[in-house]
Amino acid sequence: MTQPKLPPAPSDLAMVPFVSVENMMKIVNHIGPARMMAEIAEYIESDFKRWEEFDKTPRVAAHSTEGVIELMPTSDGETYGFKYVNGHPANMARGFQTVTAFGVLARVDNGYPILLSEMTILTALRTAATSAVAAKYLAPKGAKTMAMIGNGAQCEFQALAFREVLGIEGVRLYDLDPAATDKAAHNLQGSGLNIVKCTSPEDAVTSAEIITTCTADKQYATILTDNMVGAGQHINAIGGDCPGKTELHRDVLLRSDIFVEFPPQTRIEGEIQQLDPDHPVTELWRVIAGQQDGRTSDRQITLFDSVGFATEDFSALRYVYDQLQKTGHYIDLDMLADPDDPRDLFGMVRRANPKP
Amino acid sequence: MTQPKLPPAPSDLAMVPFVSVENMMKIVNHIGPARMMAEIAEYIESDFKRWEEFDKTPRVAAHSTEGVIELMPTSDGETYGFKYVNGHPANMARGFQTVTAFGVLARVDNGYPILLSEMTILTALRTAATSAVAAKYLAPKGAKTMAMIGNGAQCEFQALAFREVLGIEGVRLYDLDPAATDKAAHNLQGSGLNIVKCTSPEDAVTSAEIITTCTADKQYATILTDNMVGAGQHINAIGGDCPGKTELHRDVLLRSDIFVEFPPQTRIEGEIQQLDPDHPVTELWRVIAGQQDGRTSDRQITLFDSVGFATEDFSALRYVYDQLQKTGHYIDLDMLADPDDPRDLFGMVRRANPKP
Repeated sequence: MTQPKLPPAPSDLAMVPFVSVENMMKIVNHIGPARMMAEIAEYIESDFKRWEEFDKTPRVAAHSTEGVIELMPTSDGETYGFKYVNGHPANMARGFQTVTAFGVLARVDNGYPILLSEMTILTALRTAATSAVAAKYLAPKGAKTMAMIGNGAQCEFQALAFREVLGIEGVRLYDLDPAATDKAAHNLQGSGLNIVKCTSPEDAVTSAEIITTCTADKQYATILTDNMVGAGQHINAIGGDCPGKTELHRDVLLRSDIFVEFPPQTRIEGEIQQLDPDHPVTELWRVIAGQQDGRTSDRQITLFDSVGFATEDFSALRYVYDQLQKTGHYIDLDMLADPDDPRDLFGMVRRANPKP
Repeated sequence: MTQPKLPPAPSDLAMVPFVSVENMMKIVNHIGPARMMAEIAEYIESDFKRWEEFDKTPRVAAHSTEGVIELMPTSDGETYGFKYVNGHPANMARGFQTVTAFGVLARVDNGYPILLSEMTILTALRTAATSAVAAKYLAPKGAKTMAMIGNGAQCEFQALAFREVLGIEGVRLYDLDPAATDKAAHNLQGSGLNIVKCTSPEDAVTSAEIITTCTADKQYATILTDNMVGAGQHINAIGGDCPGKTELHRDVLLRSDIFVEFPPQTRIEGEIQQLDPDHPVTELWRVIAGQQDGRTSDRQITLFDSVGFATEDFSALRYVYDQLQKTGHYIDLDMLADPDDPRDLFGMVRRANPKP
């Protein structure tokens, strides 16, 4: 009687490093969330500088009554990346995350994935990192105080990224739900930031050089009305990120110099969906690359109309990829079939059969 | 001294079932490849019948000099699915698979992924299953012999699917590389099919009611010339599946009634990229749904110009999802962040910190 032949172990080529939620949390805590966002900000900034090298396309969205599922691909010619992300405003009330995500990097030359990563946490980090990069170029010099309207899942990340990258010293929190504000204030204890809980949006924006709005309702909301915004402020508008979802009154937009990531996407999804399709906007990458001006005066109102773009996820995935060997916080997944003879896929499957 | 707090285990909501290559091979061998393709064919057929329920979009392709990376999303309003797939003709010579793939199913109502699966093997199964479904409606009744030109990774799957679904009894193999033909003939031993190795394409197509072409070169090739195709034959053209890659001489197309999956995609990627953009074609789903005729005469040449469409991957993933509990061949991946309080993503990350 012959010994049963054991199926061969998967080859190295079959394996894709996978960063689970648990391992992403280990990476974040290993590096520290603020430092990690500052480092991701550097990747984002350097990728914005080489913007023209990227394949860019508006995200591919599947809309439903409950929300949206999107694929966000991009490529720099050497590495390809995409993110899967959902946005379901009703999820929170049902005990689910409003936004969950995962992403993939792959080699362009052979199409093989080289990283699969959770991106629910990573998206929170890269969104705050992107805001901080934009504010570096757009916020008034020496800004010390940020108002934060909307104290949900993104709030603490924004606060820490702005502390680390811009050196802000205080945040003024406001949310319709005081429990959200309490949660954020509690989490930011010991962060070195001066935290003030505010009772109204008007209260929150007082004396703040930077106003961040990150609310989650899927509707045309008016978080900021015209009278709330003063000369010289920088507005970091995060929450308006799909058709029918905005946060700012149109009059605020008309007084602001508007900076965006990728105009074809922002015109559909951002605050500027409220404006004429030819309303002038400046692409953020051009400011970072030194081709166009960011803030030019103390009186100017600057608005970063952020909707999130594929290159930012690409930068964040690239950063995580670079941490794999340093931190060891990943596992290998047997995700790619790799027969000894590439033409013999069928034979590989059948040889794995333990039956005689 | 207090005990260090252990980070909480991920909740069920955080988990996504993952079918690795190893587990996919177990599923295939558990069910049997021929039976599995016949069952997938039923899922594909039933999804083609409800074609109008699906969101359909041409795949999102990132082309490079070496190949292409594509995302293929679709949704039936209840479940969303997409496939990541690459196509790199030069890979085989470098020891990589020409095509590798993985896919995801997700709930439309909350956007949460419910399945991550390898799809290199699954794509091979669904491609052959789709060909068999098309041939059910298009091949001459009682067809017994199939010519197979191109004996690479797809070959054995096609042969077995056609045996199982159509009842063909013999295949005539031809490949430029005799080693590929030997490999396929070896793998099909004991399949119950009468296998004939042929020395030329002309030899292979002799007496075959069905001709399957699945070659992999990225170029305008002419695997079938006009003189090789006779009245009444059904052509199952698999290999022409991206711009610049075709297998049939244009004259063959002009004599055939052409059936396609999704015209906007096939016009770019299929054999019909050689024809005028308004050349008449029939959508396969309309034939399956009884809205239009398939084969109507014994003399007619029918051509299934197959490029692969997102709904077929959706059907295959739906099938795999239905096998998870039956076979148990999967593992749960901690892929989705699921904080107790959905707004407290930051707190979840920090509570996982083992440091004091």
